[in-house]
Amino acid sequence: VTTLTTQRENIFRLPGIRLGEGIQVTGDPEKVREAGIVLLTVPAQQMRQVTTYFSPYLNPQAILIICSKGIEKNTLFLMTEVLQETLPHLRRAVISGPNFAQEVGRNLPTAISLAVDPSSFSHPAEALPTATSLLEALGSLYFRPYASDDVIGVQMAGALKNVIAIACGIVKGRALGENARAAVITRGLSEIMQLGVKKGAKVETFFGLAGVGDLTLTCCSDHSSRNTNLGASLGEGIPLDVLLSRQKTLTEGVYTSDSAHGLARKLGVEAPLIESVHKILSGESTINMEISQLLSRPYKIELPNV
Amino acid sequence: VTTLTTQRENIFRLPGIRLGEGIQVTGDPEKVREAGIVLLTVPAQQMRQVTTYFSPYLNPQAILIICSKGIEKNTLFLMTEVLQETLPHLRRAVISGPNFAQEVGRNLPTAISLAVDPSSFSHPAEALPTATSLLEALGSLYFRPYASDDVIGVQMAGALKNVIAIACGIVKGRALGENARAAVITRGLSEIMQLGVKKGAKVETFFGLAGVGDLTLTCCSDHSSRNTNLGASLGEGIPLDVLLSRQKTLTEGVYTSDSAHGLARKLGVEAPLIESVHKILSGESTINMEISQLLSRPYKIELPNV
Repeated sequence: VTTLTTQRENIFRLPGIRLGEGIQVTGDPEKVREAGIVLLTVPAQQMRQVTTYFSPYLNPQAILIICSKGIEKNTLFLMTEVLQETLPHLRRAVISGPNFAQEVGRNLPTAISLAVDPSSFSHPAEALPTATSLLEALGSLYFRPYASDDVIGVQMAGALKNVIAIACGIVKGRALGENARAAVITRGLSEIMQLGVKKGAKVETFFGLAGVGDLTLTCCSDHSSRNTNLGASLGEGIPLDVLLSRQKTLTEGVYTSDSAHGLARKLGVEAPLIESVHKILSGESTINMEISQLLSRPYKIELPNV
Repeated sequence: VTTLTTQRENIFRLPGIRLGEGIQVTGDPEKVREAGIVLLTVPAQQMRQVTTYFSPYLNPQAILIICSKGIEKNTLFLMTEVLQETLPHLRRAVISGPNFAQEVGRNLPTAISLAVDPSSFSHPAEALPTATSLLEALGSLYFRPYASDDVIGVQMAGALKNVIAIACGIVKGRALGENARAAVITRGLSEIMQLGVKKGAKVETFFGLAGVGDLTLTCCSDHSSRNTNLGASLGEGIPLDVLLSRQKTLTEGVYTSDSAHGLARKLGVEAPLIESVHKILSGESTINMEISQLLSRPYKIELPNV
């Protein structure tokens, strides 16, 4: 908050991008009462605590927009499910998609999914029209949100892609090539989709911006993503505990790999790539064992399982 | 053929990769009679001529595997449709997917789709079992084919991705960022899928290796792809005629952009990205005009159209 107030810039995370004129920086929770649209940008594992704290300050007419990706550990809850407990009377929405903040801040063209949660509306039929009005409120010439009503799909895609990103990082660290990375992205998307659909998501969401779009961006970017970097270091042979001891905050994908494994088991979905990442991160198996296991699966009919 | 015979290596296209011991190099068309599996690797626009030439030499029991990607101009035929005319009595299959030859040659893990054309079998029920036996014949520990019976989908995905690759090249050449590239890949996949499904393909093929897999590889690779390179140079402001005058053989995507435009019109599918690439390549519009057109489309509900 300090550098945001004094310099109107987050010099650590988004250096060179100044806050827009209309934005007021404050540490006063009372100010939240004035907000009709509240963007929640705290890390997934802190969502419960932060929204509980803000509960008395929120306007009951406000709509909450979740900008964080992840699954709460222990409960295996998506962020909308957390809010259903902490702020049950407020309307909920989620944004997700291929949007590196650095590029958004520089006004480079960006398209994202904005999904409203119909179950948080007293009249669910008002959900999509509300989404459309949010597009106008949040969108600009260069930042183009597309409306959806599938919060489950958008959140499952946004969270689980971090596990596939770790797998792609391992492929990179082991120098297995771009053919292998493309295969991991393809099969990973199929696993994410199967898990999502079992949890109640719509198939088509996984082929949209929050699905294919974000997965591709995260797995193929030249820029550093924390998840692919973690995988790449593992692939190069650096032990996980060494990597984790270097981190100030734990890479979200490490939690998600645990949660994804838990969800696959709970929902009864076979997800070999997600399982492999989980086994590697939990120390149950090694990268070499998992690679040879994946390559020795029998030949079969390609079933992308739509 | 010369360097393949003398050095057992294609020093121009795959330097450093030697042919396997079991492979015999010959210019004698009579030798084709002995082949039970024939891989067709000629450029798409030469497929008709080459297969017509080989027609008298082929064993009637042989199965043809098309390895080329593209749509025949003028006829707008897929390669299986060309063979249906030139070699109507032979069984047909297609391979496609994320497989840079350089990586395959170095034994890096690669997964592809192998689709058989049931309409080319006297007993269509034998198609998938034949595909399974082809997996065994072509596969190895590092080269993993997956069976399919959707030749239309595999070919539409393989050909049309080249048009989206040109669009991604333009995004790169204009330095529009990775968010924009991810959005182009996502919306491009949706357009390819709609065109494919209208032509008779199965939706799920587009989310498999020949679809998402190959599109991602082509659009995101660090290596040079002729299509993304062409787009990048256009994006940097080099005129098309200058670029084309430098090429010995025309980049396949230039033909495909024309054919894709023709197919979209013929099949009655709205494909704004494919149309934009076509207009830019045909000189009907400029990159700047097409970018501002795409960014000024009204906000809407995201419909990935599965």
